[in-house]
Amino acid sequence: MGRETKPHRLEPVARRIRRDILASTAKAGSGHPSSSLSAVELTTALLFDGHFRTDLRHPRYRNNDRLIFSKGHAAPLLYALYVAAGTVARRELMRLRSRTSMLEGHPMPEFPYTEVPTGSLGQGLSAGIGIALSARMDRLPFRTYVLLGDSEMAEGSIWEAIQFAAYERLDNLTAILDVNRLGQRGLTMVGHNCALFARRVESFGWKTIIVDGHDLRAISAAYRTARAIKGTPTMIIAKTIKGRGVPFIENRNGWHGKPLFGRDLARALKELGPINEGHRMPIARPRTAKPLLLAKKPVAAVAYQKADMISTRQAIGAALTRLAPKYPNLIVLDGEVENSTYTALFHTKYPKRFIETYIAEQNMAGIAGGLASRGKLPAAATFAAFLSRAHDQIRMAQFAGTHQVFIGTHAGVSIGQDGASQMGLEDLTMFRSLEGSTVLYPADAVSAEKLTDRALSAKGIVYLRAGRNTAPILYANSTPFTVGGSITHRSSRNDKATIVAAGVTLNEALKAAEELQKRRVNVRVIDCYSIKPIDAATLKKAARQTKHLVVVEDHRPEGGLADAVRSGLGSLAGTVTSLAVHGIPHSATPAQLLHAHRIDAAAIISTLKKII
Amino acid sequence: MGRETKPHRLEPVARRIRRDILASTAKAGSGHPSSSLSAVELTTALLFDGHFRTDLRHPRYRNNDRLIFSKGHAAPLLYALYVAAGTVARRELMRLRSRTSMLEGHPMPEFPYTEVPTGSLGQGLSAGIGIALSARMDRLPFRTYVLLGDSEMAEGSIWEAIQFAAYERLDNLTAILDVNRLGQRGLTMVGHNCALFARRVESFGWKTIIVDGHDLRAISAAYRTARAIKGTPTMIIAKTIKGRGVPFIENRNGWHGKPLFGRDLARALKELGPINEGHRMPIARPRTAKPLLLAKKPVAAVAYQKADMISTRQAIGAALTRLAPKYPNLIVLDGEVENSTYTALFHTKYPKRFIETYIAEQNMAGIAGGLASRGKLPAAATFAAFLSRAHDQIRMAQFAGTHQVFIGTHAGVSIGQDGASQMGLEDLTMFRSLEGSTVLYPADAVSAEKLTDRALSAKGIVYLRAGRNTAPILYANSTPFTVGGSITHRSSRNDKATIVAAGVTLNEALKAAEELQKRRVNVRVIDCYSIKPIDAATLKKAARQTKHLVVVEDHRPEGGLADAVRSGLGSLAGTVTSLAVHGIPHSATPAQLLHAHRIDAAAIISTLKKII
Repeated sequence: MGRETKPHRLEPVARRIRRDILASTAKAGSGHPSSSLSAVELTTALLFDGHFRTDLRHPRYRNNDRLIFSKGHAAPLLYALYVAAGTVARRELMRLRSRTSMLEGHPMPEFPYTEVPTGSLGQGLSAGIGIALSARMDRLPFRTYVLLGDSEMAEGSIWEAIQFAAYERLDNLTAILDVNRLGQRGLTMVGHNCALFARRVESFGWKTIIVDGHDLRAISAAYRTARAIKGTPTMIIAKTIKGRGVPFIENRNGWHGKPLFGRDLARALKELGPINEGHRMPIARPRTAKPLLLAKKPVAAVAYQKADMISTRQAIGAALTRLAPKYPNLIVLDGEVENSTYTALFHTKYPKRFIETYIAEQNMAGIAGGLASRGKLPAAATFAAFLSRAHDQIRMAQFAGTHQVFIGTHAGVSIGQDGASQMGLEDLTMFRSLEGSTVLYPADAVSAEKLTDRALSAKGIVYLRAGRNTAPILYANSTPFTVGGSITHRSSRNDKATIVAAGVTLNEALKAAEELQKRRVNVRVIDCYSIKPIDAATLKKAARQTKHLVVVEDHRPEGGLADAVRSGLGSLAGTVTSLAVHGIPHSATPAQLLHAHRIDAAAIISTLKKII
Repeated sequence: MGRETKPHRLEPVARRIRRDILASTAKAGSGHPSSSLSAVELTTALLFDGHFRTDLRHPRYRNNDRLIFSKGHAAPLLYALYVAAGTVARRELMRLRSRTSMLEGHPMPEFPYTEVPTGSLGQGLSAGIGIALSARMDRLPFRTYVLLGDSEMAEGSIWEAIQFAAYERLDNLTAILDVNRLGQRGLTMVGHNCALFARRVESFGWKTIIVDGHDLRAISAAYRTARAIKGTPTMIIAKTIKGRGVPFIENRNGWHGKPLFGRDLARALKELGPINEGHRMPIARPRTAKPLLLAKKPVAAVAYQKADMISTRQAIGAALTRLAPKYPNLIVLDGEVENSTYTALFHTKYPKRFIETYIAEQNMAGIAGGLASRGKLPAAATFAAFLSRAHDQIRMAQFAGTHQVFIGTHAGVSIGQDGASQMGLEDLTMFRSLEGSTVLYPADAVSAEKLTDRALSAKGIVYLRAGRNTAPILYANSTPFTVGGSITHRSSRNDKATIVAAGVTLNEALKAAEELQKRRVNVRVIDCYSIKPIDAATLKKAARQTKHLVVVEDHRPEGGLADAVRSGLGSLAGTVTSLAVHGIPHSATPAQLLHAHRIDAAAIISTLKKII
């Protein structure tokens, strides 16, 4: 209304992108055009008005600005932007959501401009923080942009990230909030009240800029302002219209996740007006700063004494510190329990490579994902029980194809008096069920050190499980430990059974075997420290030679070591008897709990007596 | 400083509670005295200055005010309060954290004044919302109080709850924020800046009252003010001193989770001064309002036609609606996907029994826990994949002993084009690994209706898994379905193998069996709709009679149906071959994905060919 303004030079580009969103989702038969349409100007201005600096031909180039679609369902917009940029063919766009296209329903890493996989809402800002922190660590000048939907502002993970980004004064991070008012099923809690969002976000220490999300000039000005703000992150809060550009669905409920077909589509395309095809939009080139990267250096050897009593959590903390020079890209994160996880050892020695993420496990895992996407090797630690808080972030991490290490301490009932809420009893199954994951569970300090090294040199999602209590040294410092390996203790030709254990139960297994030997019964003991992949060959051999396998674990009976062993044994799975944690554990001493839940030496012995 | 004021009449009570905190944690040898000491006045004033109204002898009485220790590690304070109230013996307190005491390291339900188990931080406020909502639904005048720690304000779940409580205008809810400045390992992000907390919390629509957390008069005045505020929840933000009352640990880092022993303890007790023993503190009596409760009514029978094509998610939505009169305490919650989960059917018919929790799954699960603690039967729905967001809340729920139903729709790769981020592939193992849980997975609309009924009449944590796509009706409306049951299809004396399936793979199994029968090969098919408990007897019989079991599931190979079957088979576990989802699924049609991940009829046939 009011005075006439000349159309912005990017207006035809925005129109073309709208057409591509409508056409591609119609062709696919599914997708989220209305949620894509609301953010067209926000992203068009970012990419094509000189703000976003990137080398399109080298998406992984370290100086490129980064754009994360936290509202991953707006993927058709993301793809259409790169069609406009000329690096994705329009015919590829028209293969959206098909089996052999890199353009999936939500952004996945095979699309080269995906920074982290999204599609589970509320995760993108944490990843953006990880990326922005990596820039600061490497002293690179690139900026990170995160496109947020207003519905996902209900997710607590977003507020963890908002809180933390301001605390870290990340002025190289800009969030773009697409306030289109409507969620999947109707009005959001905030609606179009952008000022309310601004008040909330500012209360955490951000600067905010409220704009009309369809005014290309205003948006461009906001990006310029955001770039100039020092000492805090900025959120551009944009009032937008869901379905913008298609008058008959604009701002109307009931059009979430619904493409337009047939007459609707024809009508929408007609109302859009003529499309200026094929003009390839230039994007600003990145700066060419050199990163501050550390060189790889040799490290000291593991050196424990036979008489030491050290918890595996402490040994992992020591190992991270010892191994830091060998893995110059290693960054340790901790959820405000560094004095329990012993990552404090690393923190003290390498303060610039440590991130205290406070009690906000989702944000911690999200930051890890962001760091990993930029070539860092994150190792994130908290109690095993509390990693369940970040299950969804870890689930999404399995799709990233990056290497991320998670360390869960205080596993199992053997923590003792603190009680059930603090006991990690479902962590093995949570990590086992991730595609391509590695799950390691040391029983002593030597294996903890060695397996930390293996974790840091592995690929994909790696989980290191650690116990709370001190434990004796079982292995010589030279003992090798491998992903997929195991160590056989007390093997003889006339073993009557095999005890398969890991972590705290290995000590119980060894005690049981010793006790039985006094009664002239030989049993084999296997330290199955690699839960995934599991040493199927050794287990099969034991099953054939000793007939009975008793699997003892400080974990629930479902999805943990017993299930892993049975799965590894294949046709020999019937030889397995499982001892695991049934019932709800009570506060008590570790020994009382191992006994009460029948995973101690006594339970192993009585089980074996019945079997043999 | 300044003018002398007469000590508050509760000051000796606070001193006695401090002594009990120190003595009990010293005796236990572990625990969190410093975090308990900071909140002594906050809770003493609440309970003993006429604010908190409860019938101490009947902790479950419906009109009692409710107090949740979200900072569960302050359990010694919680227990000491009830020692002061005279309903817990001091000798019991001195058995803190021992195997046979009801006073565990963190509050558990065996302590009768525990509303919900806590100990994983950031969860108490959501439970408080559930309780406050139950009061509103039942038109009961009791109030709900939640004691929060400042460290847990970093948890996003807290901000989900803050956002939602204000949105719901819960003026019967008071949060008490104990700002003692120090977390486990040091300063929090906010420190003693109570005004900053106030600004943040108020930006979400709460009223806040900042008080000196050790000034009993000021605290009492704050509770009075909070009670009078209408239309919004109130947070009392209290500046406190960690370790208050023990000068040499007050406000000092390094004293988290550390009892005082020996000389330290003696010195602390001496500095506390003389204790007035044995005076039993009265607590205000509750009001005697009668609740507005619905009566149980008969419901219509399941009535599908053989030709219907209905998704299990839709059938579950229909079943919740149909069964609502039979379960008058049923409350349905949904994470802003009611039009996908079909809980919209229930919402439309029973709007007062439906809670839209928006995209905040942690808060949704926490509210469910609070509702269940007050006798409601919550059924909380979202995509199966996104229930992983609430894993920690669901983990804590297993300790509550209450009945809570979770519904996860869009399970598996069979959702198709939306891609991996939306596919629930780890949900079966997540729910299986909970103590006493029930996991049900219907394959058609009839079984979905019947199993919804079973879920609502079961106990503990129940998970209902649902598929996205329409499916044929397989069962007569009269077919019974039971927890722990299964249904055998196509059984004969010369079955060469058994296909064990559930949900979408049952249809593939039936197709495969039909195809094989054309080639004169008989195979048995079992619909293993009860994943936990599993029908071990039927599976064992099949293993004995048919020798080979091929288990096909739209889930990861770890922790799901195959592991459940092997576990149920015991010594016959070796007969199992698993077909499950390996690799990272791509956007594609459901049929393409079932095929690509080798869980379709073709894969079953080719697997059976190799085996038989």
